[in-house]
Amino acid sequence: MRIAMIGGGSWGTALALVLHENGHTVKSWTIDKQSLEDIRTKQENTRYLPGIKIPREIIFTSDLHAVLNDHPQLIVNAVPSQVTRSALQEVKKMYRDEGQIWVSVAKGIENKTYLRISQVIQEVMELPAERIGVLSGPSHAEEVARKIPTAIVSSSQDIETARHIQHVFMNQYLRIYANDDIIGVELGGALKNIIALAAGICDGAGYGDNTKAALMTRGLVEMSRLGVIMGARSTTFAGLSGMGDLIVTCMSRHSRNRYVGEQIGKGRSLKEVLDAMVMVAEGVRTTESAYELAKQKNVEMPITEQIYQVLFKGKSPKKAMIDLMTRTSKIEDWGA
Amino acid sequence: MRIAMIGGGSWGTALALVLHENGHTVKSWTIDKQSLEDIRTKQENTRYLPGIKIPREIIFTSDLHAVLNDHPQLIVNAVPSQVTRSALQEVKKMYRDEGQIWVSVAKGIENKTYLRISQVIQEVMELPAERIGVLSGPSHAEEVARKIPTAIVSSSQDIETARHIQHVFMNQYLRIYANDDIIGVELGGALKNIIALAAGICDGAGYGDNTKAALMTRGLVEMSRLGVIMGARSTTFAGLSGMGDLIVTCMSRHSRNRYVGEQIGKGRSLKEVLDAMVMVAEGVRTTESAYELAKQKNVEMPITEQIYQVLFKGKSPKKAMIDLMTRTSKIEDWGA
Repeated sequence: MRIAMIGGGSWGTALALVLHENGHTVKSWTIDKQSLEDIRTKQENTRYLPGIKIPREIIFTSDLHAVLNDHPQLIVNAVPSQVTRSALQEVKKMYRDEGQIWVSVAKGIENKTYLRISQVIQEVMELPAERIGVLSGPSHAEEVARKIPTAIVSSSQDIETARHIQHVFMNQYLRIYANDDIIGVELGGALKNIIALAAGICDGAGYGDNTKAALMTRGLVEMSRLGVIMGARSTTFAGLSGMGDLIVTCMSRHSRNRYVGEQIGKGRSLKEVLDAMVMVAEGVRTTESAYELAKQKNVEMPITEQIYQVLFKGKSPKKAMIDLMTRTSKIEDWGA
Repeated sequence: MRIAMIGGGSWGTALALVLHENGHTVKSWTIDKQSLEDIRTKQENTRYLPGIKIPREIIFTSDLHAVLNDHPQLIVNAVPSQVTRSALQEVKKMYRDEGQIWVSVAKGIENKTYLRISQVIQEVMELPAERIGVLSGPSHAEEVARKIPTAIVSSSQDIETARHIQHVFMNQYLRIYANDDIIGVELGGALKNIIALAAGICDGAGYGDNTKAALMTRGLVEMSRLGVIMGARSTTFAGLSGMGDLIVTCMSRHSRNRYVGEQIGKGRSLKEVLDAMVMVAEGVRTTESAYELAKQKNVEMPITEQIYQVLFKGKSPKKAMIDLMTRTSKIEDWGA
């Protein structure tokens, strides 16, 4: 198949490698000049995926025409959530609808509109929901690029679309399970980054493994609570795109969201931490969307609320953790 | 209150510290001579809880009479699962039933009988189930002894018993939630050790965070599957004594079960690893019970089955991991 990739960050690059290895022809639209130069001269995306050799057959280019003119049969959106709309507005100008399947791999909720990223694609590209799917689950790009066994979920409102995407991406080290609860899968991937920020603060402020495990357990409960109100199945949150992704993001050394939380827990400011980062920590913007959405829908999300206060209202991380510990006891519906 | 503690290992000692701090009078029956000597001379259980000062007011003694003659109002069983029966048979000889509440804090399933530890207490001590409760959840003894914020569950068939235990143990850093699904709480605490062995093998054999997160997610599914057949609520497995304890045991540097798995993943034999350990890794014996129980009840537990093959049938850990990866896909009920 001919596949167009929008975005050449770490996950986009890792998936381009998977698709190439699966025998597909991949062209990736990448605007980062440094990445393009590195890939051209060193066959390596030193900025986003260091240490991984990129075959010459995968085309990385800043020329969107070259990517789209080739009649791609599948298009993957791999740009960060908050810039998806503007990137797609560029794509829209030269896109010919030839019935392609679209795949979203970004994990966020658009600010202001509170749309999931598949919904942003649907809206901007004027596509039926049945032609859009997502990939989500515990999948650090660095590990997938190194062919470490990974299991994720492909989801779409139309299970046939989910199965098609599964077929395109699956191989020996990347196992994919099809699922039709796209709301639950997308919200799991997005909301878990908020809990990862909280887990990072827990690490940075010097709490223990016991504390963090309790926080993660309660975190999944509030993720599921918002998800169900938005139309997701609660069981989806117990699967790979919920609990699985939450675990890997809260525990792994690779996680950017956990890292941001850890730095804040150590006393650095959000601005200071973000200014020093190359990659996007989706959780920061997702916290904003989820906080407002929870208020609007009247859903109790105590961890999200505390993280919002820390990130945007200058609340001290230690005070937030103490409030969380106290509050967690009040809302614990355990045994109820 | 006057409280008798049966067993002076790391968790028993950490809980004795909690109870003492909460204003109770604690006497602990401890047969380990080295521990008794260390506590007497250094005020420290160097063997099981190094670095923690033990107040003189907590009595540690090998004289069971001295512990039981004092009319204890609550008795805590903190000996390892597989020796609970023989320890209690000693207790039975000199026990006067004065209506005490019993609390089990061991996490296992008795071999051969497949009884939960609260059931072993019930049987040996000839007590009504209403007078027995358990404490379980993500709670490394080392962290509780250092007063790191921890949240666990107290459970009993009788919710009033669970509330009583909650009241006795709860304090600023140890939050306790009462629950009446004792089957789910005990099985969660026991079965998670099997998944921790698997997670450890995953670490030792050099797999990644993605792999481990997938394994843990599927692990919770099979724990819950056996639990429900045994009469537990599936939601209990999503709480602190299920998911919470699973997370801390699979991820923490403190976990003995994860450690045993890691060593086996690196190629050492089970005997070699266990011979070198001071403390008991409950998961090894629990694997035996759960494997047989799953066969008897016809419950599919692919991870437990592979761990059983590795521990007791000499299967190579790498082969088991490969079989697990392949098999996991077959049984994935995601989206079904």
